[in-house]
Amino acid sequence: MPRTKRGTAPSIRDVAAVANVSVPTMSRYLKDPSRVSEKKRTAIAAAIEKLNYRPNPIARALALDMSESIAVMSADTRLYGRTQTFYGIERKAQEIGYPTTIYVLDSRGGDWMLGSVRSCLDRSPAGVILIDYDRLTDSVVSHIPSTTPLVIIGGPRHEDRAQIHLCEYDSAYAMTKHLLALGHATVHYVAVPSDVDAREDGWRMALSDAHVPAPAPIATTWDAEKAIAIGRQLGEDDSVTAIFAGNDEIAMGVMRGLALAGKRVPDDVIVAGFDDHTLSRVWNPPLTTIRQHFDEAGEHAVTMLKQQIDDVVNNRPRGEAWTMFDKITGELVQRESTGERVSAAAEER
Amino acid sequence: MPRTKRGTAPSIRDVAAVANVSVPTMSRYLKDPSRVSEKKRTAIAAAIEKLNYRPNPIARALALDMSESIAVMSADTRLYGRTQTFYGIERKAQEIGYPTTIYVLDSRGGDWMLGSVRSCLDRSPAGVILIDYDRLTDSVVSHIPSTTPLVIIGGPRHEDRAQIHLCEYDSAYAMTKHLLALGHATVHYVAVPSDVDAREDGWRMALSDAHVPAPAPIATTWDAEKAIAIGRQLGEDDSVTAIFAGNDEIAMGVMRGLALAGKRVPDDVIVAGFDDHTLSRVWNPPLTTIRQHFDEAGEHAVTMLKQQIDDVVNNRPRGEAWTMFDKITGELVQRESTGERVSAAAEER
Repeated sequence: MPRTKRGTAPSIRDVAAVANVSVPTMSRYLKDPSRVSEKKRTAIAAAIEKLNYRPNPIARALALDMSESIAVMSADTRLYGRTQTFYGIERKAQEIGYPTTIYVLDSRGGDWMLGSVRSCLDRSPAGVILIDYDRLTDSVVSHIPSTTPLVIIGGPRHEDRAQIHLCEYDSAYAMTKHLLALGHATVHYVAVPSDVDAREDGWRMALSDAHVPAPAPIATTWDAEKAIAIGRQLGEDDSVTAIFAGNDEIAMGVMRGLALAGKRVPDDVIVAGFDDHTLSRVWNPPLTTIRQHFDEAGEHAVTMLKQQIDDVVNNRPRGEAWTMFDKITGELVQRESTGERVSAAAEER
Repeated sequence: MPRTKRGTAPSIRDVAAVANVSVPTMSRYLKDPSRVSEKKRTAIAAAIEKLNYRPNPIARALALDMSESIAVMSADTRLYGRTQTFYGIERKAQEIGYPTTIYVLDSRGGDWMLGSVRSCLDRSPAGVILIDYDRLTDSVVSHIPSTTPLVIIGGPRHEDRAQIHLCEYDSAYAMTKHLLALGHATVHYVAVPSDVDAREDGWRMALSDAHVPAPAPIATTWDAEKAIAIGRQLGEDDSVTAIFAGNDEIAMGVMRGLALAGKRVPDDVIVAGFDDHTLSRVWNPPLTTIRQHFDEAGEHAVTMLKQQIDDVVNNRPRGEAWTMFDKITGELVQRESTGERVSAAAEER
């Protein structure tokens, strides 16, 4: 077998060189062999044989001037849900042979953010997965051409795009109802930073359905440390007996603040979070929360994206896969922070 | 300005087409204009002018058949230190215009891991950053050609490569000495999973220098939940008064186990961790630890790598940047888990 540059598998260029045809001719051949002359077809077939070239989907994508990688766009990649989602994406993408390239969307928003989007699209990714866990990234969608394979995870529904819905509204509704059922007059909500927070909406609706007035939600940032002051303040108000935090890290900050105010969890105040952060089960006491299955969402996004990529590679029109809407439901996990006795066996499951 | 495909900036192909030269000729021109005929030089210069083409380092790299992205290799990307390091890499890489592609090294090791390495190298990255926080990835280095720009973060020293050293030995030595100075007979160590653990070595040497016999280190996994049982067991031994954990998440699990055994932190047992995890300051009580500056390590790795990439792009031999060895030192952060009174102001710094 002829040696190819850097000892790697033969590329479309190597085959073109051996067949003595141009790379665009090779591209036409890979798209549809009938589009090149019989003489060239024969030469290319011989070169493919000789180099043991396998025209895999990636090579075909390259022939279409599509990059070989899946681009993942996300705001701050250090946050728990994103890390987990990204891990699911990586694992599945690796399995099907696509590397993943990350584009961190600039949290300053606006033009800064669109700069990252342009930088991504300029490189013609095979497809894009947008992790849309805050409305910051909402405007990004309109800048991604409808001909680019795209799967959005989370965020508000974009009817003409493929999307995975995380059912946060339903989960927050279920959690709030659960906390009320434990015998509390109301549930206070500490909100994640988002213009439109489905968790807050679910909490509000559960209170409304139970004919309980909703206390003003308390806004915070993604920084768990900021929630310490909130917990301390809530701890000084004896009417506060149940707190639902928009995510687990915020719940942990709130619990620390409650401790500083001299309140015990769950004896004086019960606390629940959202996400099932790895450390939720390690917290003292372990945190009741909603398990979000982020890694599963990531894996599924790659599967959905692959169908769209296949459409492009095979020159098929935008099919069903381009507007698919799948749901991944959360799961209420009861632990000691809400005062429910959980057996060690159940906790270990 | 002529429209180019997908409305993006003009590519080397666009310029070649307008100048009526081949892409290889364009490549030669970008590497060294004197290598093409005067006629072609003039045509290319006119095309560059017409298309407002800027031959940036990335275009030059492409001309060299080098991919335009920085490959990051790491084992499990969900772990705290890696997330933070990766964030620093992303931020800096984005700043200098290189996208980052992630290759997750298969934790099953051996051939599985080398599969990821080959998959990465097959795509000719502009350069590689290897996050080597466990010895699992040690063998990877020998599979990366010495002509590929490479920066290793952490891990044992590879003399012929550029590397960033995290000074874990020194930090663990300082922490152990600090804990002994608080008046404890000895310090128990709960070890991170690594064949060669500089943190353990530093702990052992500090005990040895203080003429204190070292208790057997307790092995655990990266899973913080596993450390709960360890904490519970240590809590049942009244001779255990000071525990140093190989990372913060393990320390958190140990603290939960101590609570289950009826021990109070810091009153009965003091606990220290390593890394300064975001949640360390939120923990109840906040955790004394070593701040590792992972994001800074990531940013610096990109800066070091860029110098090597520039050498390749400019056809210079492997220079100093290829074997550079820089250190990033850790910082002891005192918090309440070791019983030291820290003012709220100091904690907020």
